[in-house]
Amino acid sequence: MSPKITVELLRQLRQAMRNTKYIAEPIQAYIVPSGDAHQSEYIAPCDCRREFICGFNGSAGTAIVTEKHAAMWTDGRYFLQASQQMDNNWTLMKMGLKETLSQEDWLISVLPENSTVGVDPWIIAADQWKNMSKALASAGHSLVAVQDNLIDAIWMDRPTRPSTHCTCVSSSVPGLTWQDKMTALRSKMAERKISWFVATALDEIAWLFNLRGSDIEYNPVFFAYAIVGMNTIRLFVDIKRLAVPTVREHLQLDTPSKVELSIQTAPYESVFTELQAVCASLGPKEKVWISDKASCALTQVIPKAHRSPIPYTPLCLAKAVKNATEIQGMKMAHIKDAVALCELFAWLEKEIPKGTVTEISAADKAEELRSQQKDFVGLSFPSISSVGPNGAIIHYRPLPETNRTLSLNEIYLLDSGAQYIDGTTDVTRTMHFGSPSAYEKETFTYVLKGHIAVSAAIFPNGTKGHLLDSFARQALWESGLDYLHGTGHGVGCFLNVHEGPCGISYKTFADEPLEAGMIVSDEPGYYEDGLFGIRIENVVLVVPAKPKYNYRNKGSLTFEPLTLVPIQAKMVNTDLLTQKERDWVNEYHRQCRETIGAELERQGRKEAMDWLIRETQPIA
Amino acid sequence: MSPKITVELLRQLRQAMRNTKYIAEPIQAYIVPSGDAHQSEYIAPCDCRREFICGFNGSAGTAIVTEKHAAMWTDGRYFLQASQQMDNNWTLMKMGLKETLSQEDWLISVLPENSTVGVDPWIIAADQWKNMSKALASAGHSLVAVQDNLIDAIWMDRPTRPSTHCTCVSSSVPGLTWQDKMTALRSKMAERKISWFVATALDEIAWLFNLRGSDIEYNPVFFAYAIVGMNTIRLFVDIKRLAVPTVREHLQLDTPSKVELSIQTAPYESVFTELQAVCASLGPKEKVWISDKASCALTQVIPKAHRSPIPYTPLCLAKAVKNATEIQGMKMAHIKDAVALCELFAWLEKEIPKGTVTEISAADKAEELRSQQKDFVGLSFPSISSVGPNGAIIHYRPLPETNRTLSLNEIYLLDSGAQYIDGTTDVTRTMHFGSPSAYEKETFTYVLKGHIAVSAAIFPNGTKGHLLDSFARQALWESGLDYLHGTGHGVGCFLNVHEGPCGISYKTFADEPLEAGMIVSDEPGYYEDGLFGIRIENVVLVVPAKPKYNYRNKGSLTFEPLTLVPIQAKMVNTDLLTQKERDWVNEYHRQCRETIGAELERQGRKEAMDWLIRETQPIA
Repeated sequence: MSPKITVELLRQLRQAMRNTKYIAEPIQAYIVPSGDAHQSEYIAPCDCRREFICGFNGSAGTAIVTEKHAAMWTDGRYFLQASQQMDNNWTLMKMGLKETLSQEDWLISVLPENSTVGVDPWIIAADQWKNMSKALASAGHSLVAVQDNLIDAIWMDRPTRPSTHCTCVSSSVPGLTWQDKMTALRSKMAERKISWFVATALDEIAWLFNLRGSDIEYNPVFFAYAIVGMNTIRLFVDIKRLAVPTVREHLQLDTPSKVELSIQTAPYESVFTELQAVCASLGPKEKVWISDKASCALTQVIPKAHRSPIPYTPLCLAKAVKNATEIQGMKMAHIKDAVALCELFAWLEKEIPKGTVTEISAADKAEELRSQQKDFVGLSFPSISSVGPNGAIIHYRPLPETNRTLSLNEIYLLDSGAQYIDGTTDVTRTMHFGSPSAYEKETFTYVLKGHIAVSAAIFPNGTKGHLLDSFARQALWESGLDYLHGTGHGVGCFLNVHEGPCGISYKTFADEPLEAGMIVSDEPGYYEDGLFGIRIENVVLVVPAKPKYNYRNKGSLTFEPLTLVPIQAKMVNTDLLTQKERDWVNEYHRQCRETIGAELERQGRKEAMDWLIRETQPIA
Repeated sequence: MSPKITVELLRQLRQAMRNTKYIAEPIQAYIVPSGDAHQSEYIAPCDCRREFICGFNGSAGTAIVTEKHAAMWTDGRYFLQASQQMDNNWTLMKMGLKETLSQEDWLISVLPENSTVGVDPWIIAADQWKNMSKALASAGHSLVAVQDNLIDAIWMDRPTRPSTHCTCVSSSVPGLTWQDKMTALRSKMAERKISWFVATALDEIAWLFNLRGSDIEYNPVFFAYAIVGMNTIRLFVDIKRLAVPTVREHLQLDTPSKVELSIQTAPYESVFTELQAVCASLGPKEKVWISDKASCALTQVIPKAHRSPIPYTPLCLAKAVKNATEIQGMKMAHIKDAVALCELFAWLEKEIPKGTVTEISAADKAEELRSQQKDFVGLSFPSISSVGPNGAIIHYRPLPETNRTLSLNEIYLLDSGAQYIDGTTDVTRTMHFGSPSAYEKETFTYVLKGHIAVSAAIFPNGTKGHLLDSFARQALWESGLDYLHGTGHGVGCFLNVHEGPCGISYKTFADEPLEAGMIVSDEPGYYEDGLFGIRIENVVLVVPAKPKYNYRNKGSLTFEPLTLVPIQAKMVNTDLLTQKERDWVNEYHRQCRETIGAELERQGRKEAMDWLIRETQPIA
């Protein structure tokens, strides 16, 4: 991987920072956040501005350019990748390390007195704007909104914004109609005396209307905003996309059943002026809900007295707790996904000795096998298919220049998943096709112990996920080891593979209590830079547990694995497992054999079946 | 325990809330916080305003009185006690339960439109003022500062504010002179470009000047403020208290060695006007540090442009990391404390069968035995000496009307500690002097497993205490049990038994990363209302650990118990322990026998020695 050469781009950007065509006064720094106007994690090519300016293409990172410096902040998953993708005009700021300055502190340390820092108000979240603005003000600087995006100004061949056709989610999948969801939303609004709600997150809008799109790779969403009042629904979306009769009928655009369920559509770009109009007509006590992660530009349209920013919208919370239909769909999707992976691993075993399988061809094979499954839509994120040292790059994506060949000597880590019409999957397995070293087995076993500790944990109703994070690390910590990423994230149902508001992480923000019906990943790991990476990931469903006692009638929860793919026993040092852990592995493999075996049988996949039977032998 | 009758008091308070002698316009609600002007947890009798108005005398709780309602918020430690001490004019608001409204939400739900809520600005912390004020404003109400305290206005026999003589900490104890500490503070100020620092927490002031007082029972502190500039030190304290020549000399009041180490004293009450004077002379960019937990009254003296509120002051952080001299002192204090407790438990075993020992007499005996130890100053908090059902009242304090007799049939829980000139102790042991039931043993063993899981945990440098909290609960959770308090708090060195900024709790505020040299408690528990309480508490020192590997050279930490008092083996169901846990218990008891045995020998305490030997037999 060779770094992007950015000398000329930085020169142009710095010129734009002084150009009165864009700004009244020159700015001394320009912030380039990671997201789009919806604060999406995965973004469309036209929104990859941070990648354009610095070369780093991971899913999280913020670039800041001053007259003399250029720095980029990202987290532990991306330290290696970022250092390889950026040239030496850039300083990598490793978030989470004690010595790393925050963006605010760094700006304060490098800026001349009374500096002005600019940012595009559409791609910075309101809460980030607030914090940054306050910190800069306290040091005598100011943060200003630059309406013209300065990256776009210097980006000659910037792609256009996608506008794919929307499709309805087939009626059996969501469990609730969009009308049901609208009614539930309005009852939450009434409960809190809220007159209007502004939906800005793309997955929330897709979920609310039971629509899907393909504007952003891997995420079945479409560019839109929605404003919901007690008797009004406004959907801001390129109207051409709703041209399909089934979609028009689904939304009852031509024949609304009730006035309050009549959807008015308007162009995507008109959300700003329409929200202004809504706000102009507000009564003195009326309140508008908007996520505190919505864009600064849209948030500031709502006068402060009427604005009620919330960390999680009612849609985000409702979407996280899956109903019985969605759970059933997620289970089906995971069975199909496991079939494809069993087939893949059986195939790899046969092919690797020939020396012809690479990271890229293995990932392609996985995609091909998944695409043979019913209702496959696409991948849910770029496959992390990594051999040996590449495995230590936590969010690695194989490229022709980094592509390694799978062999009998190095660990292979595959973190991949798919979108099916009935659900979304995300699974990581780490395998050795030859003889793993004692050290590889030892660290794999610690990771497995952590995975089991979370998966088998029983905890009181109302527990937040961050309180479970240390269970995943305990065995690693005891040996002086650790991993620099969270343990799990929420997973959508035929929606984004990463979603809030729950998760399992040492970071305590973005963390609502776990509830039965929520779905998260359980994915501890261990990474040895330059050598190998290990991660064991299942998607798990939060379910009620029935322990011996029931303290204060609070009830208990635990997890049920939805992912049913064998964990390679060859990598386990069974001496390091307790009897309880061995029992967990054997019971898990029994379930894999039973459930996936039945589907392999049905699909007549003999080789995969043999592989499954062998890989699910009980361990002693 | 019979509740305090508050009808008449509430009538008087409500009258005061409408009395123009105190306020320009009537207020519709009055908030009575728990603390004093220094936001102390333990307070002097003259500051016990919340207890005066509602009867509840626990260490944490806020009362709010409106025209029609009276409500009091406290946490899980105090639910039972508060419900017993308050009459039915009061509603107990159980913090931490999902259904309990916050103070803000409750006020909004009960107040008529456009209400005014009053509070004494000296006893509400600036950050609490800010949150409360914002929440009330968002609902159309306002928070106002009432300069005359309305409780004082109706409190006829209110005690006077104590003003005891200050004493110097003997030079061998603190390890650092106050001049060293002042220099370190100023270098932190210089580093962050801060001109002035306002010290408001009593333990921080005592620590900074190496002085102690006895204004507040159990806490060796004195009422004072300090303002420190780069060349100025102002100590606001009743000057009579510094009259002792040794103290004058210690502070170099008459012969300062250097100008910048010259202390100017001023009356306690003059801090307000003196801080005004300091602020009036500030240059345009000068900044003043003050804790965001300092009183609203004092905080607001500093103009917003100059105010730099901090969650933890540099004194708080420096005080938390004990130096070698302090650690040595803490170890000595804990050895003496253990001697007293071994003696106590040997005595209890002999006396209980006679039926003459009560909760109060046992606590008195413990105090008497502690007072025989060298450099004993007093208790570090009111002893929680509780039998059977009283043990379930987490912060119980025996009173004549609740006093139970120790017997062979009920569990006895003693949570107690002392101040010695060389250190502060805090230890809980739970014992059965007859035959515990299988259920008592089972739950005790889960608590013990939690205690060990924290005490033996190995974790990376920089880990925050809240990440260890779940280790203490894991065994309880697995059986559907839990406890409604944090697992540990910071402990001062001959200072407050509760101190920040570190701790071990599911609550994530007030939580700085653990560092070698910090001292915290490890005290999981289990409480069965109406039956018994179990808690096992050691004070533990954070020390470097040396596990097998050292990931990214980060280093690891673990805990070393300072408390060395046997844990009653009779209460343990050893079948529920792992071999590792059994080894931990046996090694801990070996240390108790070795270290405390030697001191018992030296002090010639034969009966206690026999008890220690018997109680530290290895378990199988």
